[in-house]
Order: sequence, then C-alpha cells, then structure tokens
Amino acid sequence: MAKRKKSQIIKKVGLPPGSLIYVGPDHGETSKLQLIRYNVRDMENIDPIDVSELSGSLLENGVNWINVEGLHDVGLVERIGNLFGLEQLLMEDILNTEQRPGIEYSENYVYLTLKTLHSLTQSEIVYEQLSVVMYDNCVITFQERSGDIFNAIRERLKHPDNRLSKRGTDYLFYRLIDTVVDNYFLVLHSLSDQIEILEDKVFSSPDQETLREIQYLKKELIYLLRVVVPLRESLSKLIRDKPTDISDSTLDYLNDVYSHSVHVLETLETYRDIVSGLVNIYMNNISQKMNEVMKVLTIMASIFIPLSFVAGVYGMNFANMPELHWKYGYFMVIGLMLAAGLSMVFFFRKKKWL
Amino acid sequence: MAKRKKSQIIKKVGLPPGSLIYVGPDHGETSKLQLIRYNVRDMENIDPIDVSELSGSLLENGVNWINVEGLHDVGLVERIGNLFGLEQLLMEDILNTEQRPGIEYSENYVYLTLKTLHSLTQSEIVYEQLSVVMYDNCVITFQERSGDIFNAIRERLKHPDNRLSKRGTDYLFYRLIDTVVDNYFLVLHSLSDQIEILEDKVFSSPDQETLREIQYLKKELIYLLRVVVPLRESLSKLIRDKPTDISDSTLDYLNDVYSHSVHVLETLETYRDIVSGLVNIYMNNISQKMNEVMKVLTIMASIFIPLSFVAGVYGMNFANMPELHWKYGYFMVIGLMLAAGLSMVFFFRKKKWL
Amino acid sequence: MAKRKKSQIIKKVGLPPGSLIYVGPDHGETSKLQLIRYNVRDMENIDPIDVSELSGSLLENGVNWINVEGLHDVGLVERIGNLFGLEQLLMEDILNTEQRPGIEYSENYVYLTLKTLHSLTQSEIVYEQLSVVMYDNCVITFQERSGDIFNAIRERLKHPDNRLSKRGTDYLFYRLIDTVVDNYFLVLHSLSDQIEILEDKVFSSPDQETLREIQYLKKELIYLLRVVVPLRESLSKLIRDKPTDISDSTLDYLNDVYSHSVHVLETLETYRDIVSGLVNIYMNNISQKMNEVMKVLTIMASIFIPLSFVAGVYGMNFANMPELHWKYGYFMVIGLMLAAGLSMVFFFRKKKWL
Amino acid sequence: MAKRKKSQIIKKVGLPPGSLIYVGPDHGETSKLQLIRYNVRDMENIDPIDVSELSGSLLENGVNWINVEGLHDVGLVERIGNLFGLEQLLMEDILNTEQRPGIEYSENYVYLTLKTLHSLTQSEIVYEQLSVVMYDNCVITFQERSGDIFNAIRERLKHPDNRLSKRGTDYLFYRLIDTVVDNYFLVLHSLSDQIEILEDKVFSSPDQETLREIQYLKKELIYLLRVVVPLRESLSKLIRDKPTDISDSTLDYLNDVYSHSVHVLETLETYRDIVSGLVNIYMNNISQKMNEVMKVLTIMASIFIPLSFVAGVYGMNFANMPELHWKYGYFMVIGLMLAAGLSMVFFFRKKKWL
Amino acid sequence: MAKRKKSQIIKKVGLPPGSLIYVGPDHGETSKLQLIRYNVRDMENIDPIDVSELSGSLLENGVNWINVEGLHDVGLVERIGNLFGLEQLLMEDILNTEQRPGIEYSENYVYLTLKTLHSLTQSEIVYEQLSVVMYDNCVITFQERSGDIFNAIRERLKHPDNRLSKRGTDYLFYRLIDTVVDNYFLVLHSLSDQIEILEDKVFSSPDQETLREIQYLKKELIYLLRVVVPLRESLSKLIRDKPTDISDSTLDYLNDVYSHSVHVLETLETYRDIVSGLVNIYMNNISQKMNEVMKVLTIMASIFIPLSFVAGVYGMNFANMPELHWKYGYFMVIGLMLAAGLSMVFFFRKKKWL
Repeated sequence: MAKRKKSQIIKKVGLPPGSLIYVGPDHGETSKLQLIRYNVRDMENIDPIDVSELSGSLLENGVNWINVEGLHDVGLVERIGNLFGLEQLLMEDILNTEQRPGIEYSENYVYLTLKTLHSLTQSEIVYEQLSVVMYDNCVITFQERSGDIFNAIRERLKHPDNRLSKRGTDYLFYRLIDTVVDNYFLVLHSLSDQIEILEDKVFSSPDQETLREIQYLKKELIYLLRVVVPLRESLSKLIRDKPTDISDSTLDYLNDVYSHSVHVLETLETYRDIVSGLVNIYMNNISQKMNEVMKVLTIMASIFIPLSFVAGVYGMNFANMPELHWKYGYFMVIGLMLAAGLSMVFFFRKKKWL
Repeated sequence: MAKRKKSQIIKKVGLPPGSLIYVGPDHGETSKLQLIRYNVRDMENIDPIDVSELSGSLLENGVNWINVEGLHDVGLVERIGNLFGLEQLLMEDILNTEQRPGIEYSENYVYLTLKTLHSLTQSEIVYEQLSVVMYDNCVITFQERSGDIFNAIRERLKHPDNRLSKRGTDYLFYRLIDTVVDNYFLVLHSLSDQIEILEDKVFSSPDQETLREIQYLKKELIYLLRVVVPLRESLSKLIRDKPTDISDSTLDYLNDVYSHSVHVLETLETYRDIVSGLVNIYMNNISQKMNEVMKVLTIMASIFIPLSFVAGVYGMNFANMPELHWKYGYFMVIGLMLAAGLSMVFFFRKKKWL
Repeated sequence: MAKRKKSQIIKKVGLPPGSLIYVGPDHGETSKLQLIRYNVRDMENIDPIDVSELSGSLLENGVNWINVEGLHDVGLVERIGNLFGLEQLLMEDILNTEQRPGIEYSENYVYLTLKTLHSLTQSEIVYEQLSVVMYDNCVITFQERSGDIFNAIRERLKHPDNRLSKRGTDYLFYRLIDTVVDNYFLVLHSLSDQIEILEDKVFSSPDQETLREIQYLKKELIYLLRVVVPLRESLSKLIRDKPTDISDSTLDYLNDVYSHSVHVLETLETYRDIVSGLVNIYMNNISQKMNEVMKVLTIMASIFIPLSFVAGVYGMNFANMPELHWKYGYFMVIGLMLAAGLSMVFFFRKKKWL
Repeated sequence: MAKRKKSQIIKKVGLPPGSLIYVGPDHGETSKLQLIRYNVRDMENIDPIDVSELSGSLLENGVNWINVEGLHDVGLVERIGNLFGLEQLLMEDILNTEQRPGIEYSENYVYLTLKTLHSLTQSEIVYEQLSVVMYDNCVITFQERSGDIFNAIRERLKHPDNRLSKRGTDYLFYRLIDTVVDNYFLVLHSLSDQIEILEDKVFSSPDQETLREIQYLKKELIYLLRVVVPLRESLSKLIRDKPTDISDSTLDYLNDVYSHSVHVLETLETYRDIVSGLVNIYMNNISQKMNEVMKVLTIMASIFIPLSFVAGVYGMNFANMPELHWKYGYFMVIGLMLAAGLSMVFFFRKKKWL
Repeated sequence: MAKRKKSQIIKKVGLPPGSLIYVGPDHGETSKLQLIRYNVRDMENIDPIDVSELSGSLLENGVNWINVEGLHDVGLVERIGNLFGLEQLLMEDILNTEQRPGIEYSENYVYLTLKTLHSLTQSEIVYEQLSVVMYDNCVITFQERSGDIFNAIRERLKHPDNRLSKRGTDYLFYRLIDTVVDNYFLVLHSLSDQIEILEDKVFSSPDQETLREIQYLKKELIYLLRVVVPLRESLSKLIRDKPTDISDSTLDYLNDVYSHSVHVLETLETYRDIVSGLVNIYMNNISQKMNEVMKVLTIMASIFIPLSFVAGVYGMNFANMPELHWKYGYFMVIGLMLAAGLSMVFFFRKKKWL
C-alpha cells in the first residue's frame, strides 16, 4: 500500500489567477511533444516534434492529434496554448493535476479534463490527469507523464481502412475518452479481485492488517468516486448541450461512453456497500474469538476450582476429621471429584461450549 | 451459495467501439434461432429456422417473433442485426451480457435490455440478459442461453381466440416484459423465505455461517437493486416519451408493468432494511452468549475461591493454631463454608444471574 | 406477535394481464353487497342487495354508495365492474390485495386504492385493502373482508340535516379517505404506547425478547411507511391534477387529508428514528451488565486469590520453616490476610467498583 | 426530564371534518381576549375585552391586534372565527394544537400556524401552538395558553415614534413571526449548553443516566426539527408566492426571518450529528472501563495462580520429597516465587497494563 | 484544542429588526478604516483614514477599496453604511459575525458575506467573518478584526502593470473571494495532516485522547461544511443571475472560484467519511486489546488451575493414600504436571494464542 501523494495545490495559494504553474508531483522526466496527422489516405507520426515546427506541420485536410507528455515544462504548455489561442485560465487548469474532472466549451473549442487510471500492482491505483482540447481540426492531449493507454488507437490508425481515419476530430476526441473509461473497467476488475481476497481473509483469518486493508480500500473507493462522478456529470452536460463541433453520430457514441461511466459509478457504489459490510464481519469475528477464549477459561476454571476446593478441605489439619481415617475415604473423594468434573463437562456439552 | 461469475467485460477493453464480441460466460451451447409468426387467424412456430430462410419467412400481415437463444455465436447475431439494419453499437450492446438494463428508441425501433431472473435453488439467483428489439412488425428477442420463461406466451398463442393474436407487435413486446417482471415476484418470494429462515436462525442458533449468509443476502439484494432500478427508469422513460410504435392501450399496460417494477423495488428496499437489522441482532446474540459464559465463570469462581481460601487457612502448618484442636472445629468450618456458599448463591439469585 | 401472512402474488405469475384472480388470504367469509342511496331528503340502506337488482336500484338524483365486502368472490366483482364499465386492468388491481396504494383517473372515474389499518391488540396491526371508485353519481367501495370503519359515516347519513347528504359523490369519496387516514392516527397512538413501553423495558430490564420486539416494531414501521408514502403521493397527484369530478370545496378538504397524511408520515419517520436509537441503548445495557458481572468476578478473585496463596505458602511441608513455630505466627498471618483483603476492598471502593 | 404529553388527536377520530373540538392538554386556565389597536398617533390596549364588544371596537384607520389566549374555550374561537368569516377547516386547525406548522392564504387572509418554544429549565422545552391570521387591518393571534413572548412588541408600541405604528398589519404579522424565531435561538443556546455538559460527562464519568440524557436530547432534536422544517417551508412558500396583503418591504424582512429559520435548522442538524457522535464515545468509554476491570483481574490472577501452584506442590504429602528436607528449601522456594511474581509484574509493565 | 466560542446571537433576541448591534466576540481592538484607490496609472493607500474624509477621498475614475477592520465600533459601520445608502437590514447582517454566508444584490450593489479561515496551530481553525459590498466603483470590505489575508493583493497593486489596476471593481471583488477560497486549501492541507497523524495514532497507540481528537475533528469538519456549503450556493446563485455590475470575463473567473469551492466541499466530505471510518478502527483496536488481556488470563488460569488441583489432591491428609508412599510418587506427579502444562501450551499454540 502506497502513501497518497501530498497535495501540491498550496503552491498556488496567493498567486493571481491565470498564473501558469505546474501543480503536481515531479516525475523526473522531460516533457515531450508528438504530432499524429492523418486523413482517409495517409497517416504520419512525428515523434518527437519541436514546438516551433508544430504550426507548419499541421494537416489542413485531416485530423491533427498533438500529444503533450509531461506538464512540468510550463513553457511548452504555454507556447502550445498561445499557438491555439487557449485562454489563460484554461491553461492554468491544464497544468493543475489536482483539478477536478470537468468540461468547458465555447464556439471554438471543447475542453475536457479527466483522470486516467492504471492499477500497477493489485492494490495500488495510479491517477494521472489527462486534458483533451478539441480545436478546429486538432485534438490536443496533455498528459501528466510519458507512457499512456492510447497505443491501441495509434496502432489502429496505421491500419488502412480503419474507421478513425474516415471520421473527423470529434471521433478521435470520443475514442480517447472511450479508451480512458474502458481502462476504468480494468481497475474495477482489479478491485473486485481485492474485495474477494479481503472477504476470504475476513472470514478465515482476520487480523489488524486486514482492517487496515479494508480502510485503505474504502478510501480508494471514495477517491475513485470523486473521479468518476464529475466525469459522468461532464459527459451528461456535453450530451445535453450538443456543442456544434460534435456530430450527431459521435454524440451517439458519447452516449455510449456516458452509460459506461454510469456503469462504473454504480459498480463503485456497490463495492463501497460491500466493503462497508466487511467491517461489520471483521468486528464480529473479533467478538467470536473473544467468546472462544472466554469459553476455554470458563470451562477450565469451572471444572477445576470446585475440585480444588474439595481437595483443600481434606488438606485441612483439624485434629478431628473423621473422613480422613476412613479406609476408602481417599478413593471416595477421588470418585466424587471425577463425578463432579464429568457432570461439569456434561453441562458444558449441553450448552454446546464443548 | 455460488461464486459470482467473473466479469468478462475486460475482453473488450482496447477494442474499437462497435466491435462485435460476446461478453459473458460460456454456457457450452449452440446458438438457436426460432420464428413464431401469427395473426388473428393463424400461428406458426418454425423451430429451428436457418438465418438464411428468415427473411423470406416473415409474415407481412401479422406479428413475427424472432427468438435468438445463445449469444456466443456472434456471426448469427450480426446477420440478424444486418437483416433488420440494427446499428453496430446496438448489436454490441446485445452481445454484452454485462450491459446495464436500458432503453433506446428511434423512429424505427424500440430496444430494451433487461435481466431475467431465475431462482434455481433457494439461495441462488441466476441472472440472464434479455434484449428485446421491436422493429416494424417484428419482435426480436436475444437471450443469453436456451430455455426461457416465455413458454406460457407460446402456449397462449396456440389457443384460438387469445388476446395476443388480436393485437400488434407492441402488445407482444409488452407481454414479454410483463412476464419478466412477473418472474421477479417469484424471486422476491424466494428471498422472503430466505429472510424468514435467517431471522429464525439469528434468534435461535446463530453461528459464523449465519453471518456469512446475511452478508451474502445483502450482496444479492444490492445486485438485484442494480438490475431493477434501471429497468424502472427505462419503463418510466418509455411511458413518458410514448414512442409512436406503441399504441395508447399498450401504454396503459406498460404503466401497469411500471407500477409492478416500483413494487419490486420497494420490496427489495424493505428487504435490505430488514437484513441490515439482522446483523445487529446477530451481534447482540453473540454478546448475550458471552454474557452467559461470563456469568457461569463468575458464579463458579465467586463461590469456590473464597471457600478454597478458608480451606487453605486451615491447611496451614502453624504449630499453634487453636481451632485445629477444637473438637468440632472441622464441622464448624464446614458449616461456615456451606453458609458462605449458600449466601453467594442467594446473592446471585437476587441479581437474577441464576 | 403474529407471523406476517405469506405473499399470494405468485398466484398470478404467468397469467395474462387482466386475468381476474383474487390475490390475498382466505378470510373464510362470503362476499356481500350493500347499497346506500341518499339525497338531501331521503336515505335508504339496502343490505344485502343482489347484484342483479343493483342496476335498477340506483338513485338518479342522489348519491349511490355501493359497498362490496369480501373479494374472493371474483364473479361478483366482475359483474359489478362490467355494470359500470370498469377496465379489466382496474378490476385486476381491485382483486389484488397486495396492490401498492395508488390512484388512477380518466374522464369517467376516479380510482383510489389504499390500506385501512386496525390495531387489534396492542402489538398487531391488521392491513386491509380498500379500493374506492367514484363513477358518475356512484361511489363503489371494495373491501377485503366484512366489518369496516365506516359505521360513523352510515350513522351520520341517517341524521337529518347532515352535511354529507347535501353534497355530492365527491364529498362521500373524501369522507371515506378521511376516515381511513383518521384511523391511521389510532394506529400511531397505539405505536406510541408500544414505543414508550419498550423504552421503559430497555432501560429497566431488557432481555432477548425486548430486542425481538424492537426488531418487530422496526419492521412494522417499515411496512407502515410503505403504505403511507404512496397514499401521500396519490393524494398529492389528485390535488395537483384536479380531476373534473371533484369540486373546488372538496379539493380543500382533500388538501386537509393530504396534510394529515404528511403528519402521519413524519410521525412514522420520527418513530423509526426513536426505535433505531433503542437498539443502541439495548446494546449498551447488555454491555453494562457484562461489566457488572466482570466486576464481581474481579473483586472476588482479586481479594481471595492472593490470600489463598499466602495460606498455601504456610501449608507447605518444608522441614525448616521458622515462622511455623513462632508462637503468634498463625495470628500474625491471619492479621496480614485481613489487612491485605481490606486494602483490596479499599482499592475497589476508590475505583467505584463497590 | 419531563414525560412528553400524550397525543390528544384521537379525540377527533370519527368526527366529521370541520368539527370544532379542542385538541391539546388542559392547562386549567380560562380563555382570554385582548385587543390592541393602534395607528401612527394612538395606541390602546383593551385587556380583557368581551367578544361581543370586539366588532365595535376595531379601529378603521389603523391596525387591530386581537390576541386570544387559551384555546379550550371552543365557543370563543368559533365566535371570533365567524366574526371574521374564517372557514370551518381553518378554525378546526387553530383548535388542534398538534397541527403541523403550515401556511394558507386566500385573497382575504394569510394564516400561519407555528410553534413557540420556551426552555423553562435547562433540559425541558415547552412547545406552544401559535396561529396568526392576518385579515384586512386585523392580526388575530391564537395562543394555547396565557403568558407569551410578545411583551417586547407591546412595550414598543407604547413608545411614541416606533416603527411598528408607522407600518401596516403585515409588519405586525412579520414582527410576531420574527419574535418567535428569535426565541428559537434562545432554545438553541440552551441546547448548546446541554450538549457541552453532556460532552464533558461522557468523557469524564459516564453512567446509564448519561445515555438516557443523550437519548432524550436526540429525541428533543428530532421533535425540534419537525417544528422548524415545516416553518421554513411555510416561509419559503410565503416569500415565493408573495400574497397581495404583504408589501415588498415586509417581504424583505420576511426573507430575513426565512434565513434565520435556515440558520436554526442547520444548527439543529449540526447538533444532531454531534449528539450522535456522543453515543459512540459513551459506548467506547464503557468498553474502556471493562478493559480496565479485565486488566486488574488478569494481573492478580496471572501473578498469584502460578505462585499458589508452587505452594500447592510443596504442600503435598508424599513420603519422598527431597526438597522438603533441604535446609534452605523453604527460602529458595520463597525466593523463586518472588522472582516469578516480579517477572510477571515486569511483563505487565512492558505491556503497559500497569 | 480550544473551546468553541460561545454564541453571542442571543444579544439580539427581542430587539426590533435592523437594530445595529455587534454580535461576536470582543477582540479588544479598535476599529480601523483604510482606503486604497487606484486606476491604471496610480495607486494610493490611505491608512488609516478618518470616516469623515472618506467621502471626499474617493477616486472618480478608478476603483476604491474601503477596508473596515473591527466591527465592534457600530457607529463607524453605521456611518459608512449611511454614506453608501446601505439598507438597515444589510448593516445588521454585516455586524452579526454569526451570520450564515450568503449573497444579496439589487441594481445598486452586490453584497456577499463569507468566512475567512486561518489555521493558526495545527489543530485550531479561526473563523473570521468577511462582508464584501460592491457598490458603484467602490468595494467595501468589513472584517471582524485587524490583520487579514489580502496583503498579496495590496502588494500586487503596487506593482506597475498588474492586471488588477487594468480592470474594474468586479475584478477586485472576484480577487478578494478568490483569495479567501485559496486560503481554504491551506486549511484543507492542515486537516489532511491531522487526519494522517490521527490515522497513525489509531493504528499504533490509540487512547481516550485519540477518540477525543477524532470527535473534535469531526465537529470541525461539520462546522467547515456549514461554512463552505452556503458559499458554494452563493457563488452558484451569483453566476446564474449574472448581476449587471459583473462583466462577462469576471464571471468566467467567478466560475473558476465556484469550481474551487466545489473542490473544497468534496474534499471536506471525503475527510468526513475517512474520519468516520477512524472511529470504527479505534473501537476495534480497543476490542483487540481486550482480547489480548483475556488471552493472557485464560492461558495462565488454564495452565495452572488444573495443576494446582493435582497438587491439592496430594496435599490431602487421608490416612490411606497409597500413592504418597510410592518411592517415585512425587516425581511421577511432577512429571504428570509438566506433561499437562506442556500439552496446554501446545493447545494454545495450535489456537495461535501464544
């Protein structure tokens, strides 16, 4: 289990709005720019491309996908922003990786920010911010760090006669979001596995660590919900407002992504309910164990304390204790003790403690 | 109790939208196609029918019910979809058995996907996906596997002078949904039985297994709610939007199904509340038992430990212990012990521990 | 406490819609038909009346109240339904005593179904279904069994110069609903008594049975809420839509009933909150008792175990134990034990355990 | 802590609507009528005034405040109601002190019913029903019993040049409501004190009585919320609908009262959350104490039981026990016991139980 | 941890509306007035300025920021209010530091009241009321006490060519609110630290004090939510209604602040969920410890009580006890005891209690 990364947003407190500053962890990478331009006939991947050549390299009759990886190079983001006339506030949002997922659009552009999720190992989920700007015949993606989940799209573009090439920017825009949401299902899948493992643990051999894992999972689900809820809202808003840049057929596709996001959301809520139930079972298991401990104590004490008393009686040193001098006194007492002990055992069996 | 089947949806991650791929468990069956065509006068059941003959076999003046059982044969679904001009996305949804229940309609068709429920044994509920497409004078049903709950409808169609034959496709569409929702009541009935059994167990002889069953039932109710809530929404949307394909009188019937779905929903929520209460009672029962154990221990220890002490005192080997030499010393001490023991018993009786 | 009656609704599963079948428990009574017809001048009560005479007996210029008691005679209900041209689906609903309370109206009729409540003994509430149909100058009431809560209305009709006779069918319709909701207050009153008794029990002498009663009461409140919530919705809908059959002054009265139903609802919710709190107090009481048991054990054991140890020491048979031969050794040890015992008592007093 | 008064509403069950009957506790007072009439120049307080003189005493050009104290005199309320042409249902509501707070208005009048609160002693809150009817140039207040919170208003009216005299009936209407809501803050203040005391108790010396007080406070907060929520609704409705009798400037004032009622509501909800948290802390405290008791027992038993065993061994009467004849056997055993005892003490210290 | 300050609002109970009275704690400072006037070319800071000179010092062609620090000088607030023609009710609100955050605007002014937060030490948050009135070309800020969070803005105004100077009053208005909300993030940051510390404590070494801190934090979060929720509402209302005083570009900025306030709100809710979870873990930890105590007791008692019994048997003084005279009787018994003791240890090891 990894420590959640410290919030960096306080870097910005006190700065005037529109101050371009990178808010996020330092991934220790250099920023990179990539251009993929294509139309029905051709497809070209210029990787890396220098920002100064970008403007001249754009395809007039086709789709230009400009991909920025690594946001700490504020200057790069600013130059690209200026190239496409993006507003200062929007660029500020792109640079703030703690931005709440959201959508904005004007007549010129559609801007969507959301989180891509990777589940590296089974119990750790990595959140990465992705901003997608659709502007004229360009789609610009800003990613927090290098390496992404869009290789399937790049491969597909290489294939002749793929659907992507035949359609416009809005379809690429949709495919990017769709890929992100599809990846959410992978995370759900990994969560589902974790929950099953935890369920088994809670019923078989729960310990303090199990509770810690439950608490961790609960927090993870809370964070995930905070990522998915605003995405669903954004998509719902996009579909309702139907910006002119987006064609009707692409809207149908976005509707599909929207219903997937609802699916993810409901699944997360289901998981939260189940994990909450696990705490109860854990608690009960602790009580059960205490109960078992108490039973052992009670059985041992209840059987032997009275017997010890009897032994104590005949260990007294009174001068006049007639039983002591009976020939079979000792054996009678031993017999009595056995009988008493066995009747206690019988009593506990009847109570089902044994 | 059965393991919930593993999600298959990750099969689709990374594929382009509209990729026709079956998402669901492998039932090990071959897909089957069936055509039932009828009008006021005649009714014919062609089972099985080959997909190539389908187009020519449709009845012009009547209702055609095309039933597909088994979705793993993607090619079959695709051919039928193409025959009726269904959109790629819609066919993708039909093939995805983890689809959230929902509704879609255009001028041409009404498409509803929902879950049919069987409760095979008392504690296991089987979910099966059903997609119903109403298109022109055809109703196409896509079922996850062979064997369904619609035999009553088929029987009814054979009867001369039944209401189904006199009415159009929309009435058949309604009857199919109605049958599904009616089956939900069977599941509710089985759940109600389970809850009663669990209630009895929790009050009489709860153990770890009982808690597991409660947790299992809680999860089952959560899953059921996730199936019924979107169905109610779909029906509500259908009734509100009144697609042209659906006549006013059928709308009245659909309204009836809608209110049944509300009934199912409220009952499920009631069950959830009751099952949540059971956890509390279970917990309390554990505490009660612990209490009882503690009481036995306390009574035994409180009576015999002081007595043992007295015996111990007179077992000491001091040279000068006058009582030891009294003639009735022993009997007096035995009397004293009896008195002490009885007064403890009396004390515990007063406290109602005995 | 009575067992909740088994749901009968599965009788209907698989039947076509509009199938007239009685869903409910068998009360072992014969169905009965009653006609009360009145106007400003006259009032006549024909009880029983045969269904064949009904049509001819209706008063043209006045109000006809047709009361059906006992729904298992499906034929009777059907004949009356046909007489007044009621729809098949509506008659199906009347015969289904597990119907959710609801309202329907067309130009011809207003149909309201709700539950009447009796609290026979203090802890048992009997639910009975009542359907009221207002049609032209007739009000038809369908009751689950004989014996009802409307005798006050019948008595009032006998009085000359009562308000009922001066007003139309809609006022009778209102008075029937008003009477039902008024009866809810009686049930609330009885529930309030039960809660007070339970509160006292929980604080004074709670046992397993108390918890069972709390759980039972919680379930009862859940069921009651499921009865009252849809009634409030129905009334709200009726008031909002203002069907033409209902005059403005009667609407004012219905508004009054509506606000009563809100009152009932809020009171039920308050009760639910209070009863939920009782579980906590009960749990705590169990813990408190455990605590007391533990204290007794701890006090007894802590005082006598060390003393027994001392006695044990001087019961050892070592050849060389100087103290044993001191003249006042025994008395010194007894004194020491007393001192130790008393200091333990003092310690426990300081801890407020004694 | 006082017992909540028994509901009287069942008095009305079975009576026709509009039956004038007093529903509430008997305060053992005689009803009283008071008239305060004023305009910019004059102010006159006629107390008591006979109902027969009322009609003749009203001021044409000014404001008439008719105050009725004590509602059990149904005849008095009826005569006043008839004088101002109040509807039967409205008078019924005035007489029902268990009425839910609410508002009604027609072209002629505005009718608001709400609860005034007094917190007599620290832990008891007295609810009294107040109905305010604004009619033409009259404001009629119906109070449950004599003695009220409006003396500040009466005093103010005596002052020359006060704002009340310069403004109309709607301003008096507002001032009455404002005074009531202001009094709610006094109750909040008293509740805040109680919560602080309870918090201290729960952390320092909680007992069964503390839990009872928490439960009592929780119930009190539930009742208060049921009083304040509908008042806020009523005010919101009044402001939204802007009845013609109320001037724009008075609406601004009412808006202010509305925001005060929201403030009261939010504070109550905060209190409820805090009090709910107290139960948890109480529960934990009980567990803590149990823990302490267990520790004492465990320490005493764990130290002395093994020692007693050793003593027991050397109290055995075997003929051949070499140790018994060692010269320093006794002292060695005593030394061993001391060492064992001290190592247990050391062990418990390490575990931080001592 | 500091005691929450006592509510002062009861000072106002009974006073007529619009009574100007300071509601809040006495900070023991003198009130202060400051004027900052600026336009694109110049900026002047007159600090302090006398209220009598204020009117003459305002800049016609520029922005005037009038800052009042300390509200207990009611006369000062009143004079400023009268100067700008503020309504009596509005001035009353400004003076009431327990005012709920809210917004009001007419054609002339926009009035927003909100809370500024400082987190002095790690666990104490200071709430201060800030009222901002935008009126013509003036922005008037009323602060509860001297010293504020706006120094960054003042510094920025001194810089030539800053954005603030180029824009109007609405931009200053926005910047003030933005600064307040930015400060909320600092508080969130401090809360996040506290939660992490508490989490560690709860898992490692929880005690009664930890619970108190959790309860304190929970209350703090409740209070914070009560501050942020109405601010979000106010901003939402402002953006929706678009008062004429606010330009479109500033609205975009306010939209940004709004989304920040949503971010703050969601984070607070997340924190509340996490803190609630901590209580559970704390409770469980207590149970765990109890369990450990019980285990030690049970192990000690279960091993030694039976052994003591055996010793007791052979301490009996019967004349005829053959074993006592066996040569190796003693050693056999010691061996037996060892075997029994070891088998108990083995048993506990198997149960994983050791």
